[in-house]
Amino acid sequence: MGEFVVTGAASGIGRAIKSALEIEGHVVIGVDLHDTDICADLSNNDEVERSIQTIRSHCPDGLDGFVPCAGTGVENPNKKLIPLVNYFAVVEMVEGLMPSLQLRRGAAVLVCSNSATVQGHDEGYVQCLLDNDRDKAVELAESLTGFQLYGGGKLALARWMRKRSTSAAQAGVRLNALAPGYTQTAMTESGMKDPVVGPSMEAFVKSIPLGTGAQPEDQANAALFLLSDKASQIAGSVLFVDGGHDAMFRPDNF
Amino acid sequence: MGEFVVTGAASGIGRAIKSALEIEGHVVIGVDLHDTDICADLSNNDEVERSIQTIRSHCPDGLDGFVPCAGTGVENPNKKLIPLVNYFAVVEMVEGLMPSLQLRRGAAVLVCSNSATVQGHDEGYVQCLLDNDRDKAVELAESLTGFQLYGGGKLALARWMRKRSTSAAQAGVRLNALAPGYTQTAMTESGMKDPVVGPSMEAFVKSIPLGTGAQPEDQANAALFLLSDKASQIAGSVLFVDGGHDAMFRPDNF
Repeated sequence: MGEFVVTGAASGIGRAIKSALEIEGHVVIGVDLHDTDICADLSNNDEVERSIQTIRSHCPDGLDGFVPCAGTGVENPNKKLIPLVNYFAVVEMVEGLMPSLQLRRGAAVLVCSNSATVQGHDEGYVQCLLDNDRDKAVELAESLTGFQLYGGGKLALARWMRKRSTSAAQAGVRLNALAPGYTQTAMTESGMKDPVVGPSMEAFVKSIPLGTGAQPEDQANAALFLLSDKASQIAGSVLFVDGGHDAMFRPDNF
Repeated sequence: MGEFVVTGAASGIGRAIKSALEIEGHVVIGVDLHDTDICADLSNNDEVERSIQTIRSHCPDGLDGFVPCAGTGVENPNKKLIPLVNYFAVVEMVEGLMPSLQLRRGAAVLVCSNSATVQGHDEGYVQCLLDNDRDKAVELAESLTGFQLYGGGKLALARWMRKRSTSAAQAGVRLNALAPGYTQTAMTESGMKDPVVGPSMEAFVKSIPLGTGAQPEDQANAALFLLSDKASQIAGSVLFVDGGHDAMFRPDNF
């Protein structure tokens, strides 16, 4: 069976993906702050580098798949963590593990969000992420809202993935992304309890066309499909798993 | 097991989807010009109506899924067939079978195309389809190229699906679409051999990032995933199965 790496593996969508892969018989290396195989704070670039080196030394024959799931939510008071963990650590790790993925013609599934499309963004912030300007992103984080940082970072991530997917595909590696809508996890529960962002999150969930938010397992099902041989012709795609919200908010675009 | 309907079931992607569903043990009613359960010319509105009535009488307890796959290619000299079969018959049948799908909280997967996004369109034609103006579409068909009719029709179909998906989801029916890239079927082979459209199709195939066009089975894998319970939180989504072409042509949009 295959060898996979999942970050954010100790909770939420990451944990569900790790479990689902293990049920299929794969070996999965988890990365998270605690309670998993590689404990690392992915907001710290040195720890990102150390994680990449540890994974590469554990998997000298390559990787079948990588799912960078670790992320922090809109309500995090330490705002700079949102771009550092949700964007920079993801891009850094996909690039760092690309040679390992190439060895096995593997696949990565990034975790985007429908917040990339269903709300407005600060284009300056999105562009500074795409320009890989870490210092400016940290500086901008102080003046933007959690929603702007979260959604804008997910938009940048989807654009980065799509741009990067062409050369990756030419080298045999499939990059794709999930775009979850509201999914019941510790992260979103923490947002729901927040006095500032909670009420708007609650209204958002009530408007989901299918009538209910997703469970982490729903996202895991989609991730496993995109990682599998059944998706061997899918590259550069963003798959919305959001109960119909993205289509409701912008039917003419996709 | 479930009961499904697939149009265009005698060849190409439709045949692959019918086979894959049958292998999983489902009952599948095929619709096509010939060689299947219900023989009908879907460019003729009376035959579309008759097909809907036949299906409804065969499945009084409802349907688990519907895949309107029947379509004609860019090189068809009888140009009006492109909007009639690829757009109007699809919309008509999805609406006609909606009550059957509602009975079982079923799903439909429409077959769009990456030609909806990777080329320019005649917006007037796209709008006349969305306005359900059959006469005007047939009239416009004479003055537009096969590529404009095909790609514009697929764009309209994706927009129609996304707009319709909200109320469908609220009623328990999931509408989604595949957006295949070049896929090796009798339809595309006929295009490849055409002296007018062949050369540009060939150049298009050579530029696919993953290096090769898809097989009908690749599209069937994605359709079956979207029809399945594993996709129970996916509604209104357009899943590109095109070897990375859409991401290559428009990385910033999705």
